[in-house]
Amino acid sequence: MIEKLTIIGIGLIGGSLARALRDAGYVGEVTGYGRSVGNLQQAVELGVIDRVEVSLADAVRNADMIVLALPVGCMGEILEQLAPVLADHAVVTDVGSVKASVVAAARAALKARFAHFVPGHPLAGTEQSGVAASQADLFRQRRVILTPESETDPAALDAVRAMWEAAGAQVATLSAADHDRILAASSHLPHMLAYNLMDLVVRHDDHRAILECAATGFRDTTRIAGGDPVMWRDICLANRDALAAVLRQYKDDLEALTAAIEKGDGEWLLETFTRAKHTRDTLNKKFGIQG
Amino acid sequence: MIEKLTIIGIGLIGGSLARALRDAGYVGEVTGYGRSVGNLQQAVELGVIDRVEVSLADAVRNADMIVLALPVGCMGEILEQLAPVLADHAVVTDVGSVKASVVAAARAALKARFAHFVPGHPLAGTEQSGVAASQADLFRQRRVILTPESETDPAALDAVRAMWEAAGAQVATLSAADHDRILAASSHLPHMLAYNLMDLVVRHDDHRAILECAATGFRDTTRIAGGDPVMWRDICLANRDALAAVLRQYKDDLEALTAAIEKGDGEWLLETFTRAKHTRDTLNKKFGIQG
Repeated sequence: MIEKLTIIGIGLIGGSLARALRDAGYVGEVTGYGRSVGNLQQAVELGVIDRVEVSLADAVRNADMIVLALPVGCMGEILEQLAPVLADHAVVTDVGSVKASVVAAARAALKARFAHFVPGHPLAGTEQSGVAASQADLFRQRRVILTPESETDPAALDAVRAMWEAAGAQVATLSAADHDRILAASSHLPHMLAYNLMDLVVRHDDHRAILECAATGFRDTTRIAGGDPVMWRDICLANRDALAAVLRQYKDDLEALTAAIEKGDGEWLLETFTRAKHTRDTLNKKFGIQG
Repeated sequence: MIEKLTIIGIGLIGGSLARALRDAGYVGEVTGYGRSVGNLQQAVELGVIDRVEVSLADAVRNADMIVLALPVGCMGEILEQLAPVLADHAVVTDVGSVKASVVAAARAALKARFAHFVPGHPLAGTEQSGVAASQADLFRQRRVILTPESETDPAALDAVRAMWEAAGAQVATLSAADHDRILAASSHLPHMLAYNLMDLVVRHDDHRAILECAATGFRDTTRIAGGDPVMWRDICLANRDALAAVLRQYKDDLEALTAAIEKGDGEWLLETFTRAKHTRDTLNKKFGIQG
């Protein structure tokens, strides 16, 4: 149970976490802080948070748990502002999609207090953003990855783990570097492919006809191109090396696939598609649905 | 109304068409022909077709309409077999995902009878295959593209158009070349991207962790990698030039995106993602759903 929770950034993720913890009876008071007054007011009206503070110091003064639910590119600045006003007992965590850069920023900003910072990343979301899209069951059965460092206080780690479990999530730990390399392939790369496909179509001579002929395959493949451009720019910049490496691998593989098509190498194509399909089919079980 | 309909290949598409036309009361008797006896028996048991013939000549003898619902790579052979046994009044159409190669095969095989061949492509399907997956509403509100040639008999074109409209589809016409270039971008390219992503993950050192961390974005982006490998090999070989061209464009675009990430060019990334998202958002209206 968290007596006083402060969420910095009441968007899809921050708002959904507040809703989930309320529904679970796991939180006393929820304070919100953010840049957009309109968004904070909406969060109060929707009953997602109890109160708003317009100064960061006031927002975190009595907080037991502080969640940074901001685009990765904003983390450094907010951590700098947070350091001098943080209560001794407060645990701080974040929800950023990239971990090594956030860990570095937190270590630099928080210094000795870094032991109370638990880097985290819930593998959940939709292509929507904003508190209006938040939902209490967003994290149910979803994975949350925590990337504790050697300095991380075990009690702080336990507190953050318990919070996510109360929200319905399954918690796992990884090193920050492993997280960033794995997520580059499982999440960041698919987003780049969707944006790149959508942008190819926008600039194609036949773009109207292509959109008219878009069926469910195109729709599903490009759904995540509806994601927030600022958030994804930040992820690209923060996970630059791992993402560029897997993009180069993807491009090499696509070159081999294109060459097989140009050569008419049906055997290679059939073998590759069969291997890919086999592994994709095993994922359906994981998601508990057809396709 | 079609008195006698023969469907060659009772899979997802052929089976769904039979179901749709029955539900609409638009068909008298449906005869099935195919390679797999087990599949044909299942189609009879499911009530998808009325009867089975084991010789192609018997299957098409009295047919008013013959639908070739086979992988593109099988079209040439079946058209050659069909030519000598086709009744004078029969209209023939196909559902192939590539049109120029089917048109060429039909023209060569059917000769004067080519006027009664109407090339077609319903833009519908799922990543599943087989008659068990067929459904009467598969084509409802979906687009069907017909690609008539200069020789095509207008009455045959009208008959095929009316059949698809009875199945609930919206019919449009394009030239075969336009169809193949547009579908290379709207359908064939997304399938290649999904197969290529799935195959990268299969061969990745972290493949288990990547699959464990796969969230809804990864799931949706790779759904169509569950498609039938034989069908997609055939499409690649049949639409080789148009598909290779758009793959090369995609790869060039991905090179620019990767370079922007490596240079840390946040402005370029934000602009590109914003443009892509804007167009993707307009698609949600078309599909009548969120995302």
